[in-house]
Amino acid sequence: MHRSPIPFGLFKHLAKWLALACGVAVLAGSAAALFLFSLSWVSSTFSSHPWLLWLLPFAGFFVGWMYLRFGQSVEAGNNLLLDEIHDTKRVIPLRMVPLVLGGTLISHLFGASVGREGTAVQMGGALADQLTRVFQLSNDDRRILLMAGISAGFASVFGTPIGAAVFGLEVLATGRLRYEALLPCIIAAIVGDQVALMWGVHHDYFTITLFPSISAWSLGVMIVCGAIFGLTARAFAEVIHSISSFMKRRIHYSPLRPFIGGLIIALLVGLGFFEADRYLGLGIPVILEAFDAPLSITDSIGKFFFTVLSLGAGFKGGEVTPLFFIGATLGNALSPLFDMPFAFLAGIGFVAVFAGAANTPLASTLMAMELFGAEIGVFAATACIVSYLFSGHSGIYGSQRIGDGKH
Amino acid sequence: MHRSPIPFGLFKHLAKWLALACGVAVLAGSAAALFLFSLSWVSSTFSSHPWLLWLLPFAGFFVGWMYLRFGQSVEAGNNLLLDEIHDTKRVIPLRMVPLVLGGTLISHLFGASVGREGTAVQMGGALADQLTRVFQLSNDDRRILLMAGISAGFASVFGTPIGAAVFGLEVLATGRLRYEALLPCIIAAIVGDQVALMWGVHHDYFTITLFPSISAWSLGVMIVCGAIFGLTARAFAEVIHSISSFMKRRIHYSPLRPFIGGLIIALLVGLGFFEADRYLGLGIPVILEAFDAPLSITDSIGKFFFTVLSLGAGFKGGEVTPLFFIGATLGNALSPLFDMPFAFLAGIGFVAVFAGAANTPLASTLMAMELFGAEIGVFAATACIVSYLFSGHSGIYGSQRIGDGKH
Repeated sequence: MHRSPIPFGLFKHLAKWLALACGVAVLAGSAAALFLFSLSWVSSTFSSHPWLLWLLPFAGFFVGWMYLRFGQSVEAGNNLLLDEIHDTKRVIPLRMVPLVLGGTLISHLFGASVGREGTAVQMGGALADQLTRVFQLSNDDRRILLMAGISAGFASVFGTPIGAAVFGLEVLATGRLRYEALLPCIIAAIVGDQVALMWGVHHDYFTITLFPSISAWSLGVMIVCGAIFGLTARAFAEVIHSISSFMKRRIHYSPLRPFIGGLIIALLVGLGFFEADRYLGLGIPVILEAFDAPLSITDSIGKFFFTVLSLGAGFKGGEVTPLFFIGATLGNALSPLFDMPFAFLAGIGFVAVFAGAANTPLASTLMAMELFGAEIGVFAATACIVSYLFSGHSGIYGSQRIGDGKH
Repeated sequence: MHRSPIPFGLFKHLAKWLALACGVAVLAGSAAALFLFSLSWVSSTFSSHPWLLWLLPFAGFFVGWMYLRFGQSVEAGNNLLLDEIHDTKRVIPLRMVPLVLGGTLISHLFGASVGREGTAVQMGGALADQLTRVFQLSNDDRRILLMAGISAGFASVFGTPIGAAVFGLEVLATGRLRYEALLPCIIAAIVGDQVALMWGVHHDYFTITLFPSISAWSLGVMIVCGAIFGLTARAFAEVIHSISSFMKRRIHYSPLRPFIGGLIIALLVGLGFFEADRYLGLGIPVILEAFDAPLSITDSIGKFFFTVLSLGAGFKGGEVTPLFFIGATLGNALSPLFDMPFAFLAGIGFVAVFAGAANTPLASTLMAMELFGAEIGVFAATACIVSYLFSGHSGIYGSQRIGDGKH
């Protein structure tokens, strides 16, 4: 607390954190830009050479072997970041950056159904943590810096800085949000996003033109759909945990796990049971479709299935974009049932499944307002909060603490 | 925690809180509508009969006497609500409702410079708490219900349900936000707002057509102006506390305090030192002007002066609308200095002074996005967070706890 009328200590605090947050943002935003450019090349290579899918098992083996040989210290990925923020032990090894970057690009090149925010967040966190070493920061400062790195990574990938800033604060523990990192997270998120934009990154725009009016019916639909989205999020997290722990129990040599996962995916798709280009990879085209035309429920089920298999087996990239896909297509498919505009319910599903899976209802609401406009706020807030209540206490991040019970 | 795949306990929890939150919302929204209609009549009566100002000292005496005679148990107002949420003792007496309603209307009828959210929040909280008695709720449930009442009252007065919901969660303690009341607060806020709208309430619209682009300059301006807004908020809270405690020390018979405060205001304005219609009452016309034309810095100084005197002396109504006025006119006046569009910086000041004074940076950011559109989010978030950091640890609500230090 400061007593003098002119808060000199606060100016120092402000200058220090502005500088550190901008440093984090430049590192994380540039890494994210490099990643997004490579990812876009990799994704289009896979779509134009679908036979690459037959190599998915070997790609999986290689990613697994790389982590076994060089990456055991960073294999926990996002959870390692959360653990270090809760309980600081040692600086995140810089090798997290090339490993998660390479692992994700290889996963996408051969058609695994994975996301991209895990990569950006891990690069952001690991790069941020290198500043700990350079500036010899205290443990408290280091925790804040890591949170800023998460926010910057998330913001540069999705282009939603306010949601990303609150994500960095909210993801640590369920049911609680602390403000100590408020300024570093918002600055890192805004500047990280701008840095990525300056490198030439551009984001996908999802347009909702028709919103329902606020009524007992539309709010009731938000509550019912919020519960459905939350239960979907819960199933997603639990099935990934189950597949992963089942494989760990049965398959001791870790590179074999993504090999087998990749083999199953390649066989199912290659033998014609599913449309490869719909459910594999990042899935942006289908997410855009969900805002554009009515879809069948099979899209969300297909994506769910291939994603839990890919991530449970150990492919890299993250959960969030697949969650957006599952939510948007599920919302779209539910819309006739509830007499709602399909693009609108796609937008609600997009954020609400994510809100439940990551236990981040406020970040998801803000993200909805950033992506779709402030008009969606009331609906998104209701659906995200109900989804959060229904998603249970174990989300996609095993190292997230339970701050307060949900109800 | 629930273990069964179908969360029955959660359905019960949901049904219970939906019902309670809707009950709170109907009560608080209807009371707010009644209040806003009366307030609008009272405000226009004062503008068309400016001589009423000469009766302000007697009006002050009467309000003070009313609280001395009937209202000692509820005189703490907003702080009583916060205290009861932190540390439940006994149900808020229902008399809080007529006293704060009457006290506020009288304050406005004779030209005190006060707000209106205190009234709505106290009516919302006190009415919500009557349900505690009816349904014999536990202490934990009662705390959540009171928070929902605050959110519903705030939402119905300002028409910004998401900001209002987060306000109810965020106002309890600085530096911390807990999620236990998330669902009841959002439902009470949305439904309370809708109930008030159904009664025919309509809100003022503030339009910002020109936003700056995100750049080092515009973000730097947000940080510098955020600091100015935060220091203004800090001065506002501290001067009110000083005037109030000075008067309490010197004037033992409490009705004399607003009498003397009213006398000073009436003399200063009546003798022609200030323009009465600009700085007295709610001040909505000048807030609208701040979005419409360049203003001089004297507007924010004049409003500051008359508000701290009115509230410090004991007039009723609240701080928030005057804070919006001070922030909007100050932002407007600062805009040429920083080469910013004046309506834009008025909008930033509007929310950021409030963010600092109430220690509610997230609620204020959400409110900005609801009022001015999602485009203002990045700027509002930065300014509100910096204002929050610079406003010190004692805001306008003395009973707000310090959850975590600010830096």
